Amino acid sequence: MAQEVQNGAENDGPNVVSFSAFKPQLFVEAPKAADAVQFYKTAFGAEEVGRTMHPKRKAEQDQPLILSADLKIGSSIFTVSDFSDESATPVTGFVFCLVTEDIDAAFSKALSAGAVAKGEVTEGEVAGTVAKVEDPYGFVWMISPPTKKADDAEV
Amino acid sequence: MAQEVQNGAENDGPNVVSFSAFKPQLFVEAPKAADAVQFYKTAFGAEEVGRTMHPKRKAEQDQPLILSADLKIGSSIFTVSDFSDESATPVTGFVFCLVTEDIDAAFSKALSAGAVAKGEVTEGEVAGTVAKVEDPYGFVWMISPPTKKADDAEV
Repeated sequence: MAQEVQNGAENDGPNVVSFSAFKPQLFVEAPKAADAVQFYKTAFGAEEVGRTMHPKRKAEQDQPLILSADLKIGSSIFTVSDFSDESATPVTGFVFCLVTEDIDAAFSKALSAGAVAKGEVTEGEVAGTVAKVEDPYGFVWMISPPTKKADDAEV
Repeated sequence: MAQEVQNGAENDGPNVVSFSAFKPQLFVEAPKAADAVQFYKTAFGAEEVGRTMHPKRKAEQDQPLILSADLKIGSSIFTVSDFSDESATPVTGFVFCLVTEDIDAAFSKALSAGAVAKGEVTEGEVAGTVAKVEDPYGFVWMISPPTKKADDAEV
């Protein structure tokens, strides 16, 4: 699973971290994500290709919150999420989600390149292990595994 | 130039606007875009697939500014740009660039869905006609044509 392909010199660390893709993730003030999804459909013809609700909060909320709704515009995908204080989301309204098999290697490679950790590597309820870093230009990157389920995380 | 497309009522206008893709565009304080590109290569293994310099400013600057550098991570592409006061870029550090053939139709459709225009539709030196809107959740979308040249705009 975690490939140990060496490249570059003898050992310059985990340089072969590879990402299959990234997705921009937009956080909107809860519970407006559902409205936002509708807006992006109407305004830009976005197609919803998956939605995951906040599993735990569902019972406690009048209106269930959206953990992630994946929207496709042309060949590109982005995610819309409800931002609520309780969730471990960053303060900015926008993060880049990077998808990789090897979270730890990607995390440490980003740090050694000059990024700064945003909190600890966390084990999310739905998304699995997630690491967050802020790059030197103020943008936040969330490193997460590819096995995020899109539809049935509401169990 | 500024089309008065009426929608709603009898003809609800250009509802079949289609976008081939969108690209996140990150603005960094000029002239740090070149450093940022290098950072994303080192940290995330991004591959640079195109770079366009600011054509006019080149002669006036000690260091030429990057209008857009396209970086690929996995199957996804984003753009890094130098932000300088003179350029007609938005105040946020991040916009979504939507690519479509019909700028005016896309612009008016977004407005009728609830987006707010950010300035006039402008004729850029390099990028061609560009329209910018802010959606109800604070994110800025730049609507631009697909014919943006990536390499030889420095003439």
